[in-house]
Amino acid sequence: MCITRIPIKSGTAFHLKKGEKLKVICPEGEQVSDMVCFDKNDLENRLSNGKTFDYEECLLLSTDNYLWSNKSDKMLRILEDTCGIHDFLLAPCDTKTFEIIYKDKGPRPSCFNNLYQNLKEYGVKETLVPTAFNIFMNVPFDWEGKISVEPPRAEAGDYIIFQAEMDLLIGLTACSAEQSNNNTFKPIDYEIIPVEVKEDSQ
Amino acid sequence: MCITRIPIKSGTAFHLKKGEKLKVICPEGEQVSDMVCFDKNDLENRLSNGKTFDYEECLLLSTDNYLWSNKSDKMLRILEDTCGIHDFLLAPCDTKTFEIIYKDKGPRPSCFNNLYQNLKEYGVKETLVPTAFNIFMNVPFDWEGKISVEPPRAEAGDYIIFQAEMDLLIGLTACSAEQSNNNTFKPIDYEIIPVEVKEDSQ
Repeated sequence: MCITRIPIKSGTAFHLKKGEKLKVICPEGEQVSDMVCFDKNDLENRLSNGKTFDYEECLLLSTDNYLWSNKSDKMLRILEDTCGIHDFLLAPCDTKTFEIIYKDKGPRPSCFNNLYQNLKEYGVKETLVPTAFNIFMNVPFDWEGKISVEPPRAEAGDYIIFQAEMDLLIGLTACSAEQSNNNTFKPIDYEIIPVEVKEDSQ
Repeated sequence: MCITRIPIKSGTAFHLKKGEKLKVICPEGEQVSDMVCFDKNDLENRLSNGKTFDYEECLLLSTDNYLWSNKSDKMLRILEDTCGIHDFLLAPCDTKTFEIIYKDKGPRPSCFNNLYQNLKEYGVKETLVPTAFNIFMNVPFDWEGKISVEPPRAEAGDYIIFQAEMDLLIGLTACSAEQSNNNTFKPIDYEIIPVEVKEDSQ
């Protein structure tokens, strides 16, 4: 078992091979992790909330749902989910989000920048970073469509496990926006679980 | 008054100057029009449902809401809306959508292709066509997030008027997907209303 920690207000990027599992853990509770993914062999083929909503027929995704790409490929399957509340509606926070929503004009970390700065090392263009699957983010909506960003429901130790349906490039953050994590900035842990090698019973 | 008709299962693209209004009309009722837009001077600055949901704090958009870009600019303001039911969640239908949802493998028109084929004349790259604002599309959701595509509520003559907040390139279709328009394929009308010239009262 090899758990990697994403420090507060930062992000990372890494490859995940087809069949491998990615476990994303909320080690201290009440933290959000923005996740994006790309087809390793075609970086224009990337996570799409619109296509996912089309095929999964649901806005709230959990165990047994797939996350789809803009080119209609299955990218990840949710295998386990101890929290059950995630968001796939809102764009990753960036410098302008903080200016408009928080009236905060100073330079500061953001999920968009933490995704892009890590993903660009793999050749991802800034304009192709898609809407993230916002793990543990709690964005309830009412029948009129009104939404609000509420404290994450994730408790310490809650996790979600995805399985890769293709070779992927993943971007993952520990969220930098006060509203999303109830004004606490905490780390996120993740683990890559290799493909199980079946024992030869012969 | 100069109304232009978009024939069934087709699309168009055109410029809309800052201050001009775009009236999109459902001439026969029960039809959907997928609309995307781009900053005329920066085609990477384009319509974003994620940013719009961030700033408007609502999934269902109507009069007085703005549609925002991925770079956090206001692109369009909704000035009037006689229907009130539109969708901003689902991706434009494309060849793979028809294969997966309709099991229809033959070549056939799609909103994505009708947008892209018209927008590429203006330099838009295929991979930059965003999730559309699906005018008159009726996609109810329940408290569990389950969504379904239902017949449009628009009656003959219903319309929506947008005002451009910047110089824009617009893509607009008459939808090609059975589910979206209750198995009727109808045209869409639109009108560009010029900026009013104020009379000099002196």
